[in-house]
Amino acid sequence: MKKKYSYQELYAFTVNLFSAIGCRKKDAATVAEVLMAAELRGIPSHGLVRVSDYISLWEAGRINLQPQVHIVHETPSTFTMDADNGFGMIAGKKAMNMVMRKATTTGTAWTTVINSNHYGIAGFYSLMAAQKKMIGISGTNANPLVAPTWSLSRMLGTNPLAVAIPAKSYPPFVADFATSPIARGKLALLEKENKSIDYGFVQDKNGNPSHRPDILKEGGAIVTLGGDYEHGSHKGYCMSAIVDIFSSVLGGANFGPFVPPQVGYLPMPKQQVGKGLGHFFAAFRIDAFRPANDFLKSMDEWITAFKKATPDKEHEKVIIPGEPEFEKTIEHTKNGISIKKEVQQDLIKLSHTYRVTNPFE
Amino acid sequence: MKKKYSYQELYAFTVNLFSAIGCRKKDAATVAEVLMAAELRGIPSHGLVRVSDYISLWEAGRINLQPQVHIVHETPSTFTMDADNGFGMIAGKKAMNMVMRKATTTGTAWTTVINSNHYGIAGFYSLMAAQKKMIGISGTNANPLVAPTWSLSRMLGTNPLAVAIPAKSYPPFVADFATSPIARGKLALLEKENKSIDYGFVQDKNGNPSHRPDILKEGGAIVTLGGDYEHGSHKGYCMSAIVDIFSSVLGGANFGPFVPPQVGYLPMPKQQVGKGLGHFFAAFRIDAFRPANDFLKSMDEWITAFKKATPDKEHEKVIIPGEPEFEKTIEHTKNGISIKKEVQQDLIKLSHTYRVTNPFE
Repeated sequence: MKKKYSYQELYAFTVNLFSAIGCRKKDAATVAEVLMAAELRGIPSHGLVRVSDYISLWEAGRINLQPQVHIVHETPSTFTMDADNGFGMIAGKKAMNMVMRKATTTGTAWTTVINSNHYGIAGFYSLMAAQKKMIGISGTNANPLVAPTWSLSRMLGTNPLAVAIPAKSYPPFVADFATSPIARGKLALLEKENKSIDYGFVQDKNGNPSHRPDILKEGGAIVTLGGDYEHGSHKGYCMSAIVDIFSSVLGGANFGPFVPPQVGYLPMPKQQVGKGLGHFFAAFRIDAFRPANDFLKSMDEWITAFKKATPDKEHEKVIIPGEPEFEKTIEHTKNGISIKKEVQQDLIKLSHTYRVTNPFE
Repeated sequence: MKKKYSYQELYAFTVNLFSAIGCRKKDAATVAEVLMAAELRGIPSHGLVRVSDYISLWEAGRINLQPQVHIVHETPSTFTMDADNGFGMIAGKKAMNMVMRKATTTGTAWTTVINSNHYGIAGFYSLMAAQKKMIGISGTNANPLVAPTWSLSRMLGTNPLAVAIPAKSYPPFVADFATSPIARGKLALLEKENKSIDYGFVQDKNGNPSHRPDILKEGGAIVTLGGDYEHGSHKGYCMSAIVDIFSSVLGGANFGPFVPPQVGYLPMPKQQVGKGLGHFFAAFRIDAFRPANDFLKSMDEWITAFKKATPDKEHEKVIIPGEPEFEKTIEHTKNGISIKKEVQQDLIKLSHTYRVTNPFE
């Protein structure tokens, strides 16, 4: 095993693997591109670790490998896309490209995608727009792990939201965050390491704060951002609910407690209130509100001002959203990407099952 | 002094007072309508308590009482409005009405308002859309009180975001929240009552957590939602930053640290990087994504599902965003509205200065 792998070899392997299970080459390339964007940006929780989850979904008969993505509703500045139950990236990238084209004509445009599955990092899509000097927005719902304020029931997913805003001389501002205080992957890691977790992240089945990262297995839940009502958890609840409704009710995907799981070994919810899970995407032309150059200069000024903020004594600087991921991308492109041993082992197994050469052995 | 005052008498008094200082009757009515919406909805921090702040701004020569609100940039689905330095509600209500008209044609529409001032509760504008069975969004920036994650400098306002979504048989879902964990008004109240504040809301000038509600006077700051980095304060920072940029950079208002104060007794920032403070507004036709009735039925199902969530033992039910404010509106309309003694005293003084009859004496 090598210590680091190049983007090219990991990308090529991922394309080959998804092609081998039966994806069209172009679709396999899209899935690989989004997963590898997470690896490049230093968000491995949404990178190659997900390959086995995605393939387990297909093995469980829950993924259409040859989706016919299509528009089901349209106005001058909006549309709703049916992902035909394919991997979420396939409709996701199409929808983002199309919403950018629409915004070119109308100034801004919004779309929602229904009948979809996990689509990787939300930031990938918003960044597509920023790379074309447009503002990009994306969000998605996810299977329910989060209890709203005062609730014992898990009603919401970790529902990420991403907003990318281009600047003139700086890399774009990219906010890309789960609207919950912690992701499930991080809980799983703490559990594996036999560590406890601070208060403010999870509650037990009675709604009491818990230190146990495995408490979700016993009827517990992740709490909303803010932690408790006194500290504004109802604001986190609002954020997650907005992302959920824009991903589901808007176009007709499943909402909240009915969103299907992202792995094959978890059972499907008994009731379905819509089609698959859902995402939303938006693009704004920056010259829809003022001349483009004024916008870009002003965004540079915003970033410069925040870079000049005085950091506390434990930190060197105040972070601009997206800056660490931009720096990671440069470093990973130059020096290669580390892949955890457990992830490599999963990928090696899959490469044997589906007879694909892997870069790990 | 009466215990409670009717909507009508408080509204009429407010219209008369703003007319007496020199507002056009129609503009005075708009200012009063938005302030009274806060009182009705049980958000007195944004109600009549603000009247003296607004008038102090005008007395300090910082408000144009006869603004010529006008469009400075436009596309089919967007526009930028210059509020001509009037009270924020005047351009705010115009912008929301116009963005709804645009959305009727294009499906969705967005606008930003620059050169403006405090505009009251963000929820007022989003609710305008929901009352017409459209989705409404609004946000605004505000003078800097909040330090981003790892920052000692106050760079952001409490920057509220409001999203209103209509349902079929329920009142609309209305999320209307400051993106910071606490509002300045609440800190001021704790200070008056000589109370300390829990950790997780404010920091001192060195970035250490503080229990002192008056710590902002000594170089402290409100922290972002989440409290500290470990609990996701960078997510709160992202939310506040997005609201700030959409309110400022988008159209050309002042951003973050340069946003002017909302009261006359605080000095103007030395540097201006744009015009006044800014807001943004959006409207979505619900039939821009699926047939309207399908949307409304699905939103009813969403609300029903969340109403059925099991509450913890200390609460009777899980709250739907906007539900408490809806119930308050009914109660206040029926039984009248209480106004704090200190607020009444301020209003009595103003009524004498500007020779207006008041309902309090």
